[in-house]
Amino acid sequence: DINGERLLSRIRQLGAVGRDAEGRLVRVAATDEDRQGRDLFVAWARSAGLDVHIDRIGNIVAVWQGGANGDADPIMMGSHIDSVIDAGIYDGSSGVIAGLEVITALMEARFMPQRPIAVAAFTNEEGVRYAPDMMGSLVYAGGLDVEEALASQGTDGTRLGDQLHRIGYAGPAEPGFLRPHAYLELHIEQGPILEQVGTAIGVVENLQGISWQRIIIEGVANHAGTTPMQARRDAGVAAARILVFLRDLATRTGGCSVATVGTMRFEPDAINVIPGKASFTVDLRDPDTERLRAAEAELAGFLRDVAAEDGVAITTERLARFDPVVFSPEIVRVLEGAASGRQYQWHHMTSGAGHDAQMMARIGPAAMIFVPSRDGISHNPREFTADPDLVAGANVLLDAVKTLAGK
Amino acid sequence: DINGERLLSRIRQLGAVGRDAEGRLVRVAATDEDRQGRDLFVAWARSAGLDVHIDRIGNIVAVWQGGANGDADPIMMGSHIDSVIDAGIYDGSSGVIAGLEVITALMEARFMPQRPIAVAAFTNEEGVRYAPDMMGSLVYAGGLDVEEALASQGTDGTRLGDQLHRIGYAGPAEPGFLRPHAYLELHIEQGPILEQVGTAIGVVENLQGISWQRIIIEGVANHAGTTPMQARRDAGVAAARILVFLRDLATRTGGCSVATVGTMRFEPDAINVIPGKASFTVDLRDPDTERLRAAEAELAGFLRDVAAEDGVAITTERLARFDPVVFSPEIVRVLEGAASGRQYQWHHMTSGAGHDAQMMARIGPAAMIFVPSRDGISHNPREFTADPDLVAGANVLLDAVKTLAGK
Ligand SMILES: NC(=O)NCCC(=O)O
Ligand SMILES: NC(=O)NCCC(=O)O
Repeated sequence: DINGERLLSRIRQLGAVGRDAEGRLVRVAATDEDRQGRDLFVAWARSAGLDVHIDRIGNIVAVWQGGANGDADPIMMGSHIDSVIDAGIYDGSSGVIAGLEVITALMEARFMPQRPIAVAAFTNEEGVRYAPDMMGSLVYAGGLDVEEALASQGTDGTRLGDQLHRIGYAGPAEPGFLRPHAYLELHIEQGPILEQVGTAIGVVENLQGISWQRIIIEGVANHAGTTPMQARRDAGVAAARILVFLRDLATRTGGCSVATVGTMRFEPDAINVIPGKASFTVDLRDPDTERLRAAEAELAGFLRDVAAEDGVAITTERLARFDPVVFSPEIVRVLEGAASGRQYQWHHMTSGAGHDAQMMARIGPAAMIFVPSRDGISHNPREFTADPDLVAGANVLLDAVKTLAGK
Repeated sequence: DINGERLLSRIRQLGAVGRDAEGRLVRVAATDEDRQGRDLFVAWARSAGLDVHIDRIGNIVAVWQGGANGDADPIMMGSHIDSVIDAGIYDGSSGVIAGLEVITALMEARFMPQRPIAVAAFTNEEGVRYAPDMMGSLVYAGGLDVEEALASQGTDGTRLGDQLHRIGYAGPAEPGFLRPHAYLELHIEQGPILEQVGTAIGVVENLQGISWQRIIIEGVANHAGTTPMQARRDAGVAAARILVFLRDLATRTGGCSVATVGTMRFEPDAINVIPGKASFTVDLRDPDTERLRAAEAELAGFLRDVAAEDGVAITTERLARFDPVVFSPEIVRVLEGAASGRQYQWHHMTSGAGHDAQMMARIGPAAMIFVPSRDGISHNPREFTADPDLVAGANVLLDAVKTLAGK
């Protein structure tokens, strides 16, 4: 078994990095808080005797050779250390720490793996500062050129490459330098389903597609008191119409699964000035490729209508676009077996969130384990997963890795 | 006649203060740019030989005694030097400079007034940083306690009193130290009507009521991918519904004249996080007291509906509330006579914007002259009024002041 106390204590230690007195965690990619979190993980991995590699996009890969043949592809685990703004402590970190815990437990048990075992902390999974999300694993899997990724401009105007350099995590290794024989990721569910069905273990079979865009509306700034309603080209009202449309699109049958506008900016942003400009992001998701595409097309049509009706100019910028992913049935079966072997009830799931596993699935068979999120809350300081569930998830991960590394 | 060249050159000189290379003017109340603009006006007034007084709320009042009885109430003119964000150069400044020009022209013509003549530059007319708008004239007219006004907190967290002190305009004079025998204000129209009817002079008979509120919506921040639509308490969508409601309220018959949401903030403002909080301002206006009150009540009812339907908490904060104002019929007649005397066509108007004249009307008979705004655009760098219209407006102001100060 894994050492539950060590697992939980490390989740809390890493959780304290970037967390304020009110419990709000802000450990956004390539910030000083991200650096501190990374340093802690690297220190733990080194003290366990692992070889720590940093690649050019800042991914940390800690490897246990374990006496295995140097040429054998490793079993890889991983997740991320970066967070959203005002986050909880479990998203990402628990998977990274569980991966390290699995290796440490196997070392302590003098397990003799047939393959190296590695755990990765991927850069900028959340994508709140630099788009797209899952960037480190996407680059690792060859889905995005490393130079292009390093050139990404942040919401604060910074360049990711500069910031990685600044925090000391612009490494020399080539992303993808180890190809996974299999990739496993433990993550909190971040949704309400496991709690509803009352099981501790989710076996994730697939993951919905993600479509991210930035929408910029240009109207005409004018005086709030003197400009008749019919003469207005109000970028803010046009934006509001699109938010309501998106809510309806994702609520009615035949639309997409979820739609979210998380960011919004008005310009000049003054009380008595009609907004001349509104910029916001759109996050559309669906597990079905065709439905996601249809939702994007419906949105594009609605943007054309609003532009014509409200006399505004609307431009869109693509921030991320990932098709739905189906995980490896073989690995799913290994996870089911590991859960059943410990008499845990488990539940098949579709992931609503994006995860590094979806990128690693491009270069090796992959699947995920979910553990419950209380009240389905995540990306919020109130995010919470019970200790026994974290321990259960890590033990399923342990057994699955044992199975995969033992043959 | 006034000196048109001097008038226009000063409008341009003051217009350069706080204006960037792209023509955007940002001279928000009690900033360094406001100070520079004030300094320029004070220097011009002093060099013309006027007595310059600064009162406790930072209003600048420049007085020409002109040999008149020291006890006689003055004829006052005025407007403001502060601007919105990304403004044009005419709003406010043209009225202040025209007032100074009228006095200078009368001095040069050796006019012998029966009363002192004064021109004021009132503090924080725009209200974009500190609410309410028309603050300096409101305090001057006794409608707001000076200590309360000085304690106003800005959108940037500053205290107005501190900022006035910082820029050197926390003066010793008691607001209201001179009571106007009459108050006249020249201002650009900021709307499309004079251009549409094709006349240079608007004689303003009344001014619509203004209702400003801040609305804060508290929902629950959660994950954009994993949170089902029915489980959301999306503060951003709730805000969007209110924007669309307000647009409809002001567009349909029986609502109010105009409704505007000029500012908007989402929190945490991250692409894959459902907004847990949205804050925005609402500006409602109508020339009819009852209609304005009914519109406010309809909005309050809709806020209750949205709170119940969307599972969010909504609070409102009053930022400003001014009833409609009817200007003095006597002064309106003086302005009509001055315009007719110069063979200018003039047009009766209702002001859509708030103005210092509406506050000064509380302590003396007041009225306003409007000059046209090209394309009805204001609160925008494209704001423009033609030179001949500015000169015409200033000459009407001159003749009206002559009439009022001559008897
Ligand atoms: N797991 C997680 O929160 N990933 C962030 C990417 C997403 O928005 O789904
Ligand atoms: N004239 C002017 O723009 N005043 C600002 C106050 C208002 O919003 O009407």
